[in-house]
Amino acid sequence: MHPTDHLHEAIIRAGSPICVGMDPVYEQLPDAVRARHHEPLAAIGEFGRGVLRAIAGVAPAVKFQSACYERYGSRGVAVLEEHLRDAAQAGLFIVLDAKRGDIGISAAHYAAAALRGGAHAVTVSGYLGPSGVTPFLDAGLGVFVLVRTSNPDSDAVQGHALRDGRTVAEMMADHVAALGASRLGACGLSAVGAVVGATKSAEAAALRARMPDQVFLVPGYGAQGGTAEDIRAMLRADRRGVLVTASRSVIYAKGDGAWDEAVRDAATRFRDEIAAVIAGS
Amino acid sequence: MHPTDHLHEAIIRAGSPICVGMDPVYEQLPDAVRARHHEPLAAIGEFGRGVLRAIAGVAPAVKFQSACYERYGSRGVAVLEEHLRDAAQAGLFIVLDAKRGDIGISAAHYAAAALRGGAHAVTVSGYLGPSGVTPFLDAGLGVFVLVRTSNPDSDAVQGHALRDGRTVAEMMADHVAALGASRLGACGLSAVGAVVGATKSAEAAALRARMPDQVFLVPGYGAQGGTAEDIRAMLRADRRGVLVTASRSVIYAKGDGAWDEAVRDAATRFRDEIAAVIAGS
Repeated sequence: MHPTDHLHEAIIRAGSPICVGMDPVYEQLPDAVRARHHEPLAAIGEFGRGVLRAIAGVAPAVKFQSACYERYGSRGVAVLEEHLRDAAQAGLFIVLDAKRGDIGISAAHYAAAALRGGAHAVTVSGYLGPSGVTPFLDAGLGVFVLVRTSNPDSDAVQGHALRDGRTVAEMMADHVAALGASRLGACGLSAVGAVVGATKSAEAAALRARMPDQVFLVPGYGAQGGTAEDIRAMLRADRRGVLVTASRSVIYAKGDGAWDEAVRDAATRFRDEIAAVIAGS
Repeated sequence: MHPTDHLHEAIIRAGSPICVGMDPVYEQLPDAVRARHHEPLAAIGEFGRGVLRAIAGVAPAVKFQSACYERYGSRGVAVLEEHLRDAAQAGLFIVLDAKRGDIGISAAHYAAAALRGGAHAVTVSGYLGPSGVTPFLDAGLGVFVLVRTSNPDSDAVQGHALRDGRTVAEMMADHVAALGASRLGACGLSAVGAVVGATKSAEAAALRARMPDQVFLVPGYGAQGGTAEDIRAMLRADRRGVLVTASRSVIYAKGDGAWDEAVRDAATRFRDEIAAVIAGS
Protein backbone atom coordinates (compact mmCIF):
# COMPACT_ATOMS: atom_id res chain seq x y z
CA MET A 1 0.00 0.00 0.00
CA HIS A 2 1.22 3.50 -0.81
CA PRO A 3 2.49 4.92 2.49
CA THR A 4 0.57 8.17 2.17
CA ASP A 5 -2.71 6.36 1.42
CA HIS A 6 -2.06 4.40 4.59
CA LEU A 7 -1.56 7.65 6.51
CA HIS A 8 -4.58 9.25 4.87
CA GLU A 9 -6.85 6.37 5.85
CA ALA A 10 -5.60 6.50 9.44
CA ILE A 11 -6.31 10.24 9.54
CA ILE A 12 -9.82 9.76 8.13
CA ARG A 13 -10.55 7.09 10.74
CA ALA A 14 -9.28 9.28 13.59
CA GLY A 15 -10.97 12.42 12.25
CA SER A 16 -7.87 14.55 12.79
CA PRO A 17 -4.35 14.71 11.29
CA ILE A 18 -2.39 14.53 14.50
CA CYS A 19 0.75 12.69 15.44
CA VAL A 20 1.99 12.05 18.96
CA GLY A 21 5.71 12.63 19.34
CA MET A 22 7.34 9.90 21.39
CA ASP A 23 10.45 11.56 22.79
CA PRO A 24 10.88 9.76 26.12
CA VAL A 25 13.44 11.32 28.45
CA TYR A 26 13.89 9.58 31.79
CA GLU A 27 14.04 12.71 33.93
CA GLN A 28 10.63 13.81 32.64
CA LEU A 29 8.71 10.56 33.09
CA PRO A 30 5.80 10.41 35.54
CA ASP A 31 6.86 9.73 39.12
CA ALA A 32 4.63 6.67 39.18
CA VAL A 33 6.67 5.10 36.38
CA ARG A 34 10.08 6.12 37.69
CA ALA A 35 9.28 4.78 41.14
CA ARG A 36 8.86 1.27 39.78
CA HIS A 37 12.22 1.00 38.03
CA HIS A 38 15.83 1.29 39.08
CA GLU A 39 16.93 1.51 35.51
CA PRO A 40 16.07 4.47 33.24
CA LEU A 41 15.66 2.25 30.19
CA ALA A 42 13.20 -0.05 31.96
CA ALA A 43 11.17 3.01 32.95
CA ILE A 44 11.20 4.26 29.37
CA GLY A 45 10.06 0.82 28.23
CA GLU A 46 7.04 0.83 30.53
CA PHE A 47 6.26 4.48 29.78
CA GLY A 48 6.24 3.97 26.02
CA ARG A 49 4.01 0.92 26.25
CA GLY A 50 1.60 2.92 28.39
CA VAL A 51 1.59 5.91 26.03
CA LEU A 52 0.91 3.67 23.03
CA ARG A 53 -2.01 1.99 24.80
CA ALA A 54 -3.34 5.41 25.81
CA ILE A 55 -3.26 6.94 22.33
CA ALA A 56 -4.47 3.86 20.42
CA GLY A 57 -7.81 4.66 18.84
CA VAL A 58 -7.31 8.38 19.46
CA ALA A 59 -4.31 9.43 17.37
CA PRO A 60 -3.75 8.14 13.83
CA ALA A 61 0.02 8.38 13.98
CA VAL A 62 3.04 8.34 16.25
CA LYS A 63 6.52 9.74 15.66
CA PHE A 64 9.44 8.11 17.47
CA GLN A 65 12.48 10.26 18.20
CA SER A 66 15.22 7.71 17.54
CA ALA A 67 17.81 9.71 19.50
CA CYS A 68 15.97 9.18 22.78
CA TYR A 69 16.48 5.44 22.42
CA GLU A 70 19.89 5.44 20.74
CA ARG A 71 21.41 7.28 23.68
CA TYR A 72 21.09 3.99 25.57
CA GLY A 73 22.97 2.05 22.91
CA SER A 74 21.87 -1.28 21.50
CA ARG A 75 19.65 -1.97 24.51
CA GLY A 76 17.88 1.31 23.88
CA VAL A 77 17.37 0.37 20.25
CA ALA A 78 15.86 -2.93 21.43
CA VAL A 79 13.31 -0.95 23.48
CA LEU A 80 12.56 1.16 20.40
CA GLU A 81 11.94 -2.04 18.44
CA GLU A 82 9.53 -3.20 21.11
CA HIS A 83 7.67 0.15 21.03
CA LEU A 84 7.54 0.03 17.22
CA ARG A 85 5.92 -3.41 17.41
CA ASP A 86 3.40 -2.16 19.96
CA ALA A 87 2.61 0.85 17.76
CA ALA A 88 2.06 -1.37 14.74
CA GLN A 89 -0.26 -3.64 16.73
CA ALA A 90 -2.18 -0.57 17.86
CA GLY A 91 -2.79 0.28 14.20
CA LEU A 92 -0.81 3.52 14.33
CA PHE A 93 0.93 5.01 11.32
CA ILE A 94 4.59 5.08 12.37
CA VAL A 95 7.08 7.83 11.57
CA LEU A 96 10.66 7.10 12.55
CA ASP A 97 12.16 10.50 13.29
CA ALA A 98 15.75 9.56 12.57
CA LYS A 99 16.76 12.46 10.27
CA ARG A 100 19.15 10.23 8.42
CA GLY A 101 21.06 11.75 5.54
CA ASP A 102 23.22 9.39 3.56
CA ILE A 103 23.29 8.22 -0.03
CA GLY A 104 23.07 5.08 -2.13
CA ILE A 105 23.78 1.82 -0.38
CA SER A 106 24.02 3.48 3.05
CA ALA A 107 20.61 5.08 2.59
CA ALA A 108 19.31 1.67 1.48
CA HIS A 109 20.68 0.18 4.71
CA TYR A 110 18.89 2.85 6.76
CA ALA A 111 15.71 2.12 4.83
CA ALA A 112 16.09 -1.58 5.60
CA ALA A 113 16.61 -0.75 9.27
CA ALA A 114 13.43 1.35 9.37
CA LEU A 115 11.40 -1.27 7.53
CA ARG A 116 12.50 -4.15 9.73
CA GLY A 117 11.49 -2.03 12.72
CA GLY A 118 8.00 -1.58 11.23
CA ALA A 119 8.15 2.13 10.37
CA HIS A 120 5.97 3.48 7.56
CA ALA A 121 7.87 6.71 7.02
CA VAL A 122 11.21 8.25 7.98
CA THR A 123 12.48 11.81 8.38
CA VAL A 124 15.51 12.47 6.17
CA SER A 125 17.91 15.24 5.26
CA GLY A 126 17.75 16.47 1.67
CA TYR A 127 21.18 18.14 1.50
CA LEU A 128 22.79 15.32 -0.47
CA GLY A 129 20.28 15.47 -3.32
CA PRO A 130 17.96 12.83 -4.78
CA SER A 131 20.38 9.98 -3.95
CA GLY A 132 19.70 10.59 -0.29
CA VAL A 133 15.94 10.25 -0.65
CA THR A 134 15.04 7.75 -3.38
CA PRO A 135 16.45 4.64 -1.64
CA PHE A 136 13.82 5.10 1.09
CA LEU A 137 11.05 5.48 -1.49
CA ASP A 138 12.27 2.47 -3.44
CA ALA A 139 12.01 0.45 -0.23
CA GLY A 140 8.32 1.40 0.04
CA LEU A 141 8.70 3.95 2.82
CA GLY A 142 7.32 7.44 2.95
CA VAL A 143 9.79 10.22 3.69
CA PHE A 144 9.57 13.63 5.29
CA VAL A 145 12.45 15.76 4.03
CA LEU A 146 13.73 18.57 6.25
CA VAL A 147 12.69 21.77 4.47
CA ARG A 148 12.12 24.45 7.10
CA THR A 149 12.92 24.01 10.77
CA SER A 150 11.72 26.29 13.52
CA ASN A 151 14.88 26.52 15.64
CA PRO A 152 15.84 30.20 16.12
CA ASP A 153 19.16 29.80 14.25
CA SER A 154 17.84 27.87 11.23
CA ASP A 155 18.28 30.94 9.00
CA ALA A 156 22.06 30.53 9.26
CA VAL A 157 21.62 28.01 6.45
CA GLN A 158 17.97 27.94 5.36
CA GLY A 159 17.46 31.69 5.15
CA HIS A 160 20.06 32.60 2.53
CA ALA A 161 18.80 34.10 -0.73
CA LEU A 162 19.60 32.44 -4.02
CA ARG A 163 20.39 34.40 -7.15
CA ASP A 164 16.92 33.53 -8.50
CA GLY A 165 15.26 35.09 -5.43
CA ARG A 166 14.34 31.91 -3.59
CA THR A 167 15.62 31.17 -0.11
CA VAL A 168 17.57 27.96 0.50
CA ALA A 169 14.46 26.59 2.24
CA GLU A 170 12.32 27.44 -0.80
CA MET A 171 14.87 25.78 -3.08
CA MET A 172 14.66 22.68 -0.87
CA ALA A 173 10.86 22.88 -1.08
CA ASP A 174 11.00 22.89 -4.89
CA HIS A 175 13.47 20.00 -4.77
CA VAL A 176 11.10 18.03 -2.56
CA ALA A 177 8.11 18.82 -4.79
CA ALA A 178 10.03 17.63 -7.86
CA LEU A 179 11.16 14.44 -6.14
CA GLY A 180 7.62 13.71 -5.05
CA ALA A 181 5.71 14.54 -8.22
CA SER A 182 5.83 10.97 -9.52
CA ARG A 183 5.06 9.39 -6.16
CA LEU A 184 1.40 10.29 -5.61
CA GLY A 185 -0.95 7.97 -3.79
CA ALA A 186 -4.64 7.52 -4.59
CA CYS A 187 -5.39 10.20 -1.98
CA GLY A 188 -3.59 12.76 -4.14
CA LEU A 189 -0.66 13.25 -1.77
CA SER A 190 2.91 12.22 -2.37
CA ALA A 191 5.08 9.68 -0.56
CA VAL A 192 7.60 12.53 -0.36
CA GLY A 193 6.53 14.86 2.44
CA ALA A 194 8.25 17.76 4.11
CA VAL A 195 9.18 18.73 7.64
CA VAL A 196 7.93 22.29 8.05
CA GLY A 197 8.21 23.78 11.50
CA ALA A 198 5.27 25.75 12.80
CA THR A 199 6.25 29.19 11.63
CA LYS A 200 4.86 32.49 10.40
CA SER A 201 1.71 31.88 8.42
CA ALA A 202 2.89 33.89 5.40
CA GLU A 203 5.91 31.63 5.00
CA ALA A 204 3.78 28.53 5.57
CA ALA A 205 1.43 29.58 2.76
CA ALA A 206 4.36 30.22 0.43
CA LEU A 207 5.79 26.76 1.16
CA ARG A 208 2.37 25.19 0.52
CA ALA A 209 2.25 26.91 -2.87
CA ARG A 210 5.63 25.37 -3.72
CA MET A 211 4.72 21.92 -2.41
CA PRO A 212 1.13 21.24 -3.49
CA ASP A 213 1.34 17.45 -3.15
CA GLN A 214 3.30 17.20 0.08
CA VAL A 215 2.18 16.22 3.54
CA PHE A 216 3.73 18.74 5.93
CA LEU A 217 4.97 17.10 9.10
CA VAL A 218 4.67 19.96 11.59
CA PRO A 219 6.64 19.41 14.79
CA GLY A 220 6.19 21.36 17.97
CA TYR A 221 2.59 22.49 17.79
CA GLY A 222 1.89 24.44 20.94
CA ALA A 223 5.24 23.97 22.67
CA GLN A 224 7.21 25.78 19.95
CA GLY A 225 4.68 28.51 19.46
CA GLY A 226 2.75 27.33 16.42
CA THR A 227 -0.83 28.59 16.21
CA ALA A 228 -4.07 27.53 14.56
CA GLU A 229 -3.56 30.24 11.93
CA ASP A 230 -0.16 28.78 11.01
CA ILE A 231 -1.67 25.34 10.53
CA ARG A 232 -4.49 26.71 8.36
CA ALA A 233 -1.92 28.39 6.15
CA MET A 234 -0.33 25.00 5.48
CA LEU A 235 -3.51 23.25 4.34
CA ARG A 236 -4.35 22.48 0.75
CA ALA A 237 -7.64 23.65 -0.69
CA ASP A 238 -9.06 20.17 0.10
CA ARG A 239 -8.03 20.72 3.74
CA ARG A 240 -5.54 17.88 3.52
CA GLY A 241 -1.79 17.88 3.68
CA VAL A 242 -0.70 18.30 7.30
CA LEU A 243 0.35 15.97 10.07
CA VAL A 244 0.61 18.04 13.23
CA THR A 245 2.85 16.71 15.97
CA ALA A 246 2.80 17.39 19.68
CA SER A 247 5.10 15.64 22.06
CA ARG A 248 5.62 16.90 25.61
CA SER A 249 2.17 18.46 25.90
CA VAL A 250 0.67 14.99 25.31
CA ILE A 251 3.07 12.39 26.67
CA TYR A 252 3.83 14.30 29.89
CA ALA A 253 0.31 15.56 30.42
CA LYS A 254 -0.75 15.83 34.05
CA GLY A 255 -4.22 15.14 35.43
CA ASP A 256 -6.06 14.14 38.56
CA GLY A 257 -6.07 10.43 37.80
CA ALA A 258 -3.56 7.93 36.51
CA TRP A 259 -0.77 9.30 34.28
CA ASP A 260 -1.87 7.28 31.27
CA GLU A 261 -5.43 8.58 31.56
CA ALA A 262 -3.99 12.10 31.48
CA VAL A 263 -2.10 11.15 28.30
CA ARG A 264 -5.25 9.82 26.69
CA ASP A 265 -7.18 12.95 27.67
CA ALA A 266 -4.44 15.20 26.30
CA ALA A 267 -4.29 13.25 23.03
CA THR A 268 -8.07 13.52 22.74
CA ARG A 269 -7.99 17.28 23.34
CA PHE A 270 -5.17 17.66 20.81
CA ARG A 271 -7.11 15.59 18.26
CA ASP A 272 -10.26 17.66 18.75
CA GLU A 273 -8.38 20.97 18.72
CA ILE A 274 -6.68 20.24 15.40
CA ALA A 275 -9.91 18.85 13.93
CA ALA A 276 -11.58 22.16 14.86
CA VAL A 277 -8.73 24.17 13.36
CA ILE A 278 -9.19 22.34 10.10
CA ALA A 279 -12.98 22.47 10.13
CA GLY A 280 -12.71 26.22 10.70
CA SER A 281 -10.40 26.79 7.78
CA MET B 1 41.89 16.12 25.12
CA HIS B 2 40.77 18.22 22.13
CA PRO B 3 39.47 15.71 19.56
CA THR B 4 41.49 17.14 16.70
CA ASP B 5 44.71 17.06 18.72
CA HIS B 6 43.94 13.41 19.36
CA LEU B 7 43.50 12.85 15.63
CA HIS B 8 46.60 14.87 14.80
CA GLU B 9 48.77 12.81 17.17
CA ALA B 10 47.45 9.57 15.70
CA ILE B 11 48.26 10.83 12.20
CA ILE B 12 51.80 11.85 13.22
CA ARG B 13 52.40 8.41 14.76
CA ALA B 14 51.12 6.61 11.66
CA GLY B 15 52.92 8.95 9.28
CA SER B 16 49.90 9.33 7.03
CA PRO B 17 46.41 10.90 7.37
CA ILE B 18 44.35 7.91 6.31
CA CYS B 19 41.14 6.46 7.62
CA VAL B 20 39.82 2.99 6.90
CA GLY B 21 36.11 2.96 6.13
CA MET B 22 34.35 0.11 7.88
CA ASP B 23 31.26 -0.49 5.74
CA PRO B 24 30.71 -4.23 6.20
CA VAL B 25 28.16 -5.74 3.84
CA TYR B 26 27.58 -9.45 4.22
CA GLU B 27 27.48 -10.29 0.53
CA GLN B 28 30.94 -8.80 0.03
CA LEU B 29 32.74 -10.48 2.94
CA PRO B 30 35.60 -12.90 2.24
CA ASP B 31 34.45 -16.45 1.51
CA ALA B 32 36.57 -17.70 4.40
CA VAL B 33 34.55 -15.61 6.84
CA ARG B 34 31.15 -16.33 5.33
CA ALA B 35 31.84 -20.07 5.34
CA ARG B 36 32.18 -20.11 9.12
CA HIS B 37 28.84 -18.45 9.93
CA HIS B 38 25.22 -19.22 9.22
CA GLU B 39 24.19 -15.79 10.28
CA PRO B 40 25.20 -12.62 8.39
CA LEU B 41 25.62 -10.61 11.57
CA ALA B 42 27.96 -13.18 13.11
CA ALA B 43 30.07 -13.05 9.95
CA ILE B 44 30.16 -9.24 10.09
CA GLY B 45 31.22 -9.49 13.73
CA GLU B 46 34.19 -11.72 12.95
CA PHE B 47 35.08 -9.71 9.85
CA GLY B 48 35.17 -6.40 11.71
CA ARG B 49 37.31 -7.81 14.51
CA GLY B 50 39.73 -9.14 11.92
CA VAL B 51 39.88 -5.85 10.00
CA LEU B 52 40.55 -3.90 13.19
CA ARG B 53 43.39 -6.26 14.17
CA ALA B 54 44.79 -5.98 10.65
CA ILE B 55 44.83 -2.16 10.50
CA ALA B 56 46.00 -1.57 14.09
CA GLY B 57 49.41 0.10 14.00
CA VAL B 58 48.98 0.89 10.29
CA ALA B 59 46.06 3.33 10.03
CA PRO B 60 45.56 6.15 12.54
CA ALA B 61 41.78 6.23 12.16
CA VAL B 62 38.72 4.18 11.31
CA LYS B 63 35.29 5.35 10.16
CA PHE B 64 32.30 3.17 10.95
CA GLN B 65 29.31 3.37 8.63
CA SER B 66 26.51 3.13 11.18
CA ALA B 67 23.94 2.13 8.54
CA CYS B 68 25.70 -1.18 7.86
CA TYR B 69 25.06 -2.20 11.47
CA GLU B 70 21.69 -0.53 12.02
CA ARG B 71 20.17 -2.54 9.20
CA TYR B 72 20.35 -5.53 11.56
CA GLY B 73 18.46 -3.71 14.29
CA SER B 74 19.50 -3.65 17.94
CA ARG B 75 21.64 -6.77 17.52
CA GLY B 76 23.52 -5.02 14.74
CA VAL B 77 24.07 -2.00 16.95
CA ALA B 78 25.46 -4.37 19.62
CA VAL B 79 28.02 -5.62 17.07
CA LEU B 80 28.90 -2.01 16.25
CA GLU B 81 29.45 -1.38 19.96
CA GLU B 82 31.79 -4.37 20.10
CA HIS B 83 33.74 -3.10 17.08
CA LEU B 84 33.95 0.37 18.58
CA ARG B 85 35.46 -1.11 21.74
CA ASP B 86 37.97 -3.11 19.69
CA ALA B 87 38.90 0.03 17.73
CA ALA B 88 39.44 2.00 20.92
CA GLN B 89 41.64 -0.75 22.34
CA ALA B 90 43.64 -0.74 19.11
CA GLY B 91 44.36 2.95 19.66
CA LEU B 92 42.47 4.08 16.57
CA PHE B 93 40.82 7.48 16.27
CA ILE B 94 37.16 6.65 15.75
CA VAL B 95 34.77 8.47 13.44
CA LEU B 96 31.15 7.40 13.67
CA ASP B 97 29.73 8.01 10.22
CA ALA B 98 26.13 8.45 11.28
CA LYS B 99 25.27 11.68 9.41
CA ARG B 100 22.84 12.68 12.13
CA GLY B 101 21.05 15.96 11.74
CA ASP B 102 18.85 17.00 14.61
CA ILE B 103 18.82 19.90 17.04
CA GLY B 104 18.99 20.70 20.71
CA ILE B 105 18.14 17.89 23.08
CA SER B 106 17.88 15.32 20.26
CA ALA B 107 21.36 16.23 19.03
CA ALA B 108 22.57 15.96 22.62
CA HIS B 109 21.09 12.46 22.78
CA TYR B 110 22.92 11.48 19.58
CA ALA B 111 26.13 12.91 21.03
CA ALA B 112 25.61 10.85 24.19
CA ALA B 113 25.04 7.76 22.05
CA ALA B 114 28.28 8.34 20.13
CA LEU B 115 30.27 9.02 23.30
CA ARG B 116 29.04 5.95 25.13
CA GLY B 117 30.06 3.92 22.09
CA GLY B 118 33.57 5.35 22.29
CA ALA B 119 33.56 7.53 19.15
CA HIS B 120 35.84 10.57 18.98
CA ALA B 121 34.05 12.31 16.12
CA VAL B 122 30.74 12.09 14.27
CA THR B 123 29.56 13.07 10.80
CA VAL B 124 26.59 15.45 10.94
CA SER B 125 24.30 17.40 8.65
CA GLY B 126 24.57 21.19 8.83
CA TYR B 127 21.19 22.06 7.27
CA LEU B 128 19.55 22.92 10.58
CA GLY B 129 22.12 25.54 11.53
CA PRO B 130 24.39 25.86 14.59
CA SER B 131 21.87 24.11 16.88
CA GLY B 132 22.50 20.90 14.97
CA VAL B 133 26.26 21.00 15.50
CA THR B 134 27.14 22.59 18.83
CA PRO B 135 25.60 19.88 21.08
CA PHE B 136 28.17 17.44 19.69
CA LEU B 137 31.01 19.87 20.34
CA ASP B 138 29.75 20.63 23.83
CA ALA B 139 29.88 16.89 24.54
CA GLY B 140 33.59 16.87 23.63
CA LEU B 141 33.22 15.23 20.22
CA GLY B 142 34.72 16.35 16.95
CA VAL B 143 32.30 16.76 14.05
CA PHE B 144 32.59 16.52 10.31
CA VAL B 145 29.80 18.56 8.74
CA LEU B 146 28.56 17.57 5.28
CA VAL B 147 29.73 20.36 2.96
CA ARG B 148 30.34 18.89 -0.48
CA THR B 149 29.44 15.35 -1.43
CA SER B 150 30.66 13.57 -4.53
CA ASN B 151 27.46 11.80 -5.59
CA PRO B 152 26.58 12.75 -9.18
CA ASP B 153 23.31 14.45 -8.21
CA SER B 154 24.64 16.49 -5.28
CA ASP B 155 24.35 19.70 -7.32
CA ALA B 156 20.55 19.42 -7.13
CA VAL B 157 20.96 21.10 -3.75
CA GLN B 158 24.63 21.98 -3.19
CA GLY B 159 25.27 23.54 -6.59
CA HIS B 160 22.75 26.40 -6.52
CA ALA B 161 24.13 29.94 -6.69
CA LEU B 162 23.34 32.41 -3.94
CA ARG B 163 22.68 36.08 -4.62
CA ASP B 164 26.15 36.90 -3.25
CA GLY B 165 27.79 34.58 -5.77
CA ARG B 166 28.56 31.65 -3.50
CA THR B 167 27.19 28.18 -4.13
CA VAL B 168 25.14 26.50 -1.42
CA ALA B 169 28.16 24.28 -0.71
CA GLU B 170 30.39 27.35 -0.35
CA MET B 171 27.84 28.94 1.98
CA MET B 172 27.90 25.74 4.05
CA ALA B 173 31.71 25.88 4.03
CA ASP B 174 31.64 29.43 5.42
CA HIS B 175 29.09 28.34 8.01
CA VAL B 176 31.37 25.49 9.08
CA ALA B 177 34.42 27.76 9.23
CA ALA B 178 32.54 30.24 11.42
CA LEU B 179 31.26 27.49 13.73
CA GLY B 180 34.77 26.10 14.07
CA ALA B 181 36.76 29.30 14.52
CA SER B 182 36.57 29.23 18.30
CA ARG B 183 37.23 25.48 18.54
CA LEU B 184 40.89 25.17 17.58
CA GLY B 185 43.16 22.56 19.11
CA ALA B 186 46.84 23.03 19.90
CA CYS B 187 47.60 21.54 16.46
CA GLY B 188 45.94 24.54 14.85
CA LEU B 189 42.97 22.63 13.47
CA SER B 190 39.37 22.92 14.56
CA ALA B 191 37.08 20.37 16.22
CA VAL B 192 34.65 21.31 13.44
CA GLY B 193 35.73 19.52 10.28
CA ALA B 194 34.06 19.09 6.91
CA VAL B 195 33.08 16.20 4.70
CA VAL B 196 34.43 17.09 1.26
CA GLY B 197 34.12 14.44 -1.39
CA ALA B 198 37.11 13.87 -3.64
CA THR B 199 36.25 16.25 -6.44
CA LYS B 200 37.77 18.57 -9.02
CA SER B 201 40.96 20.08 -7.66
CA ALA B 202 39.90 23.67 -8.44
CA GLU B 203 36.82 23.29 -6.26
CA ALA B 204 38.84 21.55 -3.54
CA ALA B 205 41.28 24.49 -3.42
CA ALA B 206 38.41 26.98 -3.23
CA LEU B 207 36.86 25.08 -0.33
CA ARG B 208 40.22 24.99 1.46
CA ALA B 209 40.49 28.77 1.11
CA ARG B 210 37.08 29.09 2.78
CA MET B 211 37.85 26.58 5.53
CA PRO B 212 41.45 27.23 6.63
CA ASP B 213 41.13 25.51 10.03
CA GLN B 214 39.07 22.47 9.03
CA VAL B 215 40.08 18.86 8.68
CA PHE B 216 38.57 17.61 5.43
CA LEU B 217 37.20 14.10 5.76
CA VAL B 218 37.53 12.84 2.19
CA PRO B 219 35.49 9.74 1.48
CA GLY B 220 35.92 7.48 -1.49
CA TYR B 221 39.56 7.94 -2.39
CA GLY B 222 40.28 5.71 -5.34
CA ALA B 223 36.89 4.02 -5.62
CA GLN B 224 35.02 7.27 -6.37
CA GLY B 225 37.67 8.66 -8.69
CA GLY B 226 39.62 10.99 -6.41
CA THR B 227 43.22 11.54 -7.43
CA ALA B 228 46.48 12.59 -5.77
CA GLU B 229 46.10 16.04 -7.33
CA ASP B 230 42.67 16.47 -5.71
CA ILE B 231 44.09 15.61 -2.28
CA ARG B 232 46.98 18.04 -2.71
CA ALA B 233 44.52 20.81 -3.51
CA MET B 234 42.84 20.20 -0.14
CA LEU B 235 45.98 20.54 1.98
CA ARG B 236 46.86 23.57 4.02
CA ALA B 237 50.25 25.23 3.54
CA ASP B 238 51.53 23.17 6.51
CA ARG B 239 50.44 20.01 4.64
CA ARG B 240 47.87 19.24 7.30
CA GLY B 241 44.11 19.22 7.18
CA VAL B 242 42.96 16.05 5.42
CA LEU B 243 41.77 12.64 6.55
CA VAL B 244 41.52 10.48 3.46
CA THR B 245 39.18 7.51 3.64
CA ALA B 246 39.17 4.31 1.65
CA SER B 247 36.75 1.53 2.36
CA ARG B 248 36.19 -1.27 -0.13
CA SER B 249 39.69 -1.09 -1.63
CA VAL B 250 41.08 -1.87 1.84
CA ILE B 251 38.57 -4.01 3.71
CA TYR B 252 37.79 -6.27 0.74
CA ALA B 253 41.36 -6.42 -0.57
CA LYS B 254 42.35 -9.73 -2.15
CA GLY B 255 45.76 -11.37 -1.91
CA ASP B 256 47.51 -14.73 -2.11
CA GLY B 257 47.41 -15.38 1.63
CA ALA B 258 44.85 -15.01 4.38
CA TRP B 259 42.17 -12.35 3.87
CA ASP B 260 43.27 -10.32 6.86
CA GLU B 261 46.86 -10.23 5.62
CA ALA B 262 45.51 -8.82 2.36
CA VAL B 263 43.67 -6.15 4.36
CA ARG B 264 46.82 -5.24 6.26
CA ASP B 265 48.82 -5.08 3.03
CA ALA B 266 46.18 -2.87 1.39
CA ALA B 267 46.04 -0.55 4.39
CA THR B 268 49.84 -0.30 4.33
CA ARG B 269 49.87 0.52 0.61
CA PHE B 270 47.11 3.10 1.12
CA ARG B 271 49.03 4.66 4.02
CA ASP B 272 52.25 4.86 1.98
CA GLU B 273 50.47 6.18 -1.11
CA ILE B 274 48.83 9.05 0.76
CA ALA B 275 52.06 9.80 2.65
CA ALA B 276 53.81 10.08 -0.73
CA VAL B 277 51.06 12.32 -2.12
CA ILE B 278 51.52 14.68 0.81
CA ALA B 279 55.32 14.56 0.75
CA GLY B 280 55.18 15.44 -2.95
CA SER B 281 52.91 18.42 -2.44
